[in-house]
Amino acid sequence: MTTSKLAKMSTSGRWTGGVQTEIAIRDFEPFLIDEPERLGGKDEGPNPLEMVLSSLSGCTSVLIAVVAKEQGFSYEGIEFKNEGSLDPRGFMGVEGVTTYFQSIEFDIILETAESEEKIQQLKEAVEKRCPVMNLLVDAGVSITSNWIKK
Amino acid sequence: MTTSKLAKMSTSGRWTGGVQTEIAIRDFEPFLIDEPERLGGKDEGPNPLEMVLSSLSGCTSVLIAVVAKEQGFSYEGIEFKNEGSLDPRGFMGVEGVTTYFQSIEFDIILETAESEEKIQQLKEAVEKRCPVMNLLVDAGVSITSNWIKK
Repeated sequence: MTTSKLAKMSTSGRWTGGVQTEIAIRDFEPFLIDEPERLGGKDEGPNPLEMVLSSLSGCTSVLIAVVAKEQGFSYEGIEFKNEGSLDPRGFMGVEGVTTYFQSIEFDIILETAESEEKIQQLKEAVEKRCPVMNLLVDAGVSITSNWIKK
Repeated sequence: MTTSKLAKMSTSGRWTGGVQTEIAIRDFEPFLIDEPERLGGKDEGPNPLEMVLSSLSGCTSVLIAVVAKEQGFSYEGIEFKNEGSLDPRGFMGVEGVTTYFQSIEFDIILETAESEEKIQQLKEAVEKRCPVMNLLVDAGVSITSNWIKK
């Protein structure tokens, strides 16, 4: 396979005390990543793994828009809900325990008049191409996605 | 190995037109995930993979704080910079092309009086336990991390 020009993305961050980091991305307003107080934080922002879960929703949303256009699929709204489960002993340093999510439950609730068959077609193409979904699956995270017609 | 009580995290989102999603995490201010205009977006927020890069910095920062305490490592500041490279044909649907990052360059710039040996010890323990680092590595992303003493 021939190679293609690679796309590049970059972010920066700055420690702001405790377990907190201020993130800067392009010219957007900087935002905080932190931890709840029970994990030693000041709880002034989402934690890193919540950011990963949110990127799964954001990424699925982008791919739905792109693939829906290709497939002639119409929708009026989408809601996303996800929940990740992990064994906290991993990041606490216990050997042999996965540090990130073991599993994620992911609901994609579509407001649409399209058929279940069309929803299934959309789901298959979106999940095959969504970078964040593939990243998680390739790392061994068990994702249960529920595509629900509202 | 005995099982431990699993920790759960959850986020939700709502499509707000185009390729844009509004994310809600606990009671924090909702934020937008979007794409630049050349990718069909309104460019009103970072894109999903930029959020993943930012979570790598945030996660490393949390683990540095935790491990530094355990190892008696002192620091006065940290800056993070990362850049991910990907082949855009992946999410455009070309078979056999990885959809997410092929590689990430990651600079961790420490303001510290500690020795290079202590920095190396910190790096090893942090990278072994950082969930987002492990997620990326286990998915096959080639990460070059540069731990630099400022």
